[in-house]
Amino acid sequence: MDTQLAGLKFDEHGLIPAIVQDAGTGQVLMMAWMNSQAIELTLATGKTHFYSRSRKKMWLKGESSGHTQTVHSIRTDCDKDVLLIGVTQHGAACHDGYYSCFYRQHAAGEADWKNVGDLVFQPETVYGKT
Amino acid sequence: MDTQLAGLKFDEHGLIPAIVQDAGTGQVLMMAWMNSQAIELTLATGKTHFYSRSRKKMWLKGESSGHTQTVHSIRTDCDKDVLLIGVTQHGAACHDGYYSCFYRQHAAGEADWKNVGDLVFQPETVYGKT
Repeated sequence: MDTQLAGLKFDEHGLIPAIVQDAGTGQVLMMAWMNSQAIELTLATGKTHFYSRSRKKMWLKGESSGHTQTVHSIRTDCDKDVLLIGVTQHGAACHDGYYSCFYRQHAAGEADWKNVGDLVFQPETVYGKT
Repeated sequence: MDTQLAGLKFDEHGLIPAIVQDAGTGQVLMMAWMNSQAIELTLATGKTHFYSRSRKKMWLKGESSGHTQTVHSIRTDCDKDVLLIGVTQHGAACHDGYYSCFYRQHAAGEADWKNVGDLVFQPETVYGKT
């Protein structure tokens, strides 16, 4: 791993949260988890890679959908235990078809989350119906 | 808790990551952890509250420094296991004196993280020397 990233603090599972942000607009797209291998692959390829806790495997963001993320910048916070990655998002970040995964907003007094996202694609056309 | 927030998924420690973003500029300021009580206090007061994993206690952001965050919006992601909170930051978010905690940027080929943050205050003037 790059010596610059050697000071990062991983959790007890060897993971660090990575916030992904649109480098142009500042919109927050998603948060996922990286291990040291995911960071190495991200640095080597310029495309975001993450570690899936549920599937217990490495994944290239967009490996199924083609909706990859080209990395512009990698920042860390004061505690060096969170990453902030500036990207160009190709297609949409969310597997539900929205540009950002954060498409649900709290609305006081309403019974459910309010959908405020921009739908970029219909999930069934990208992933097939299940 | 608000019924709108009842569908949130907390981790095995009863916590959910909360990304805090400047509602005006989109700058990501910090990431911290909330439990259900922190969410309730945040909703009730309009000021961000978090749960400190190291100190094992609830804290009002800015309780020592006065640098509170006024909440504008609360979003969640597709999996409902991360929060994104839009705020007005009073003073600076980072206890190191920077407006954002993400003041260190990876620079290829350099020996350390590059400091790219805006210093708003000298920590010793706010927290006292230790």
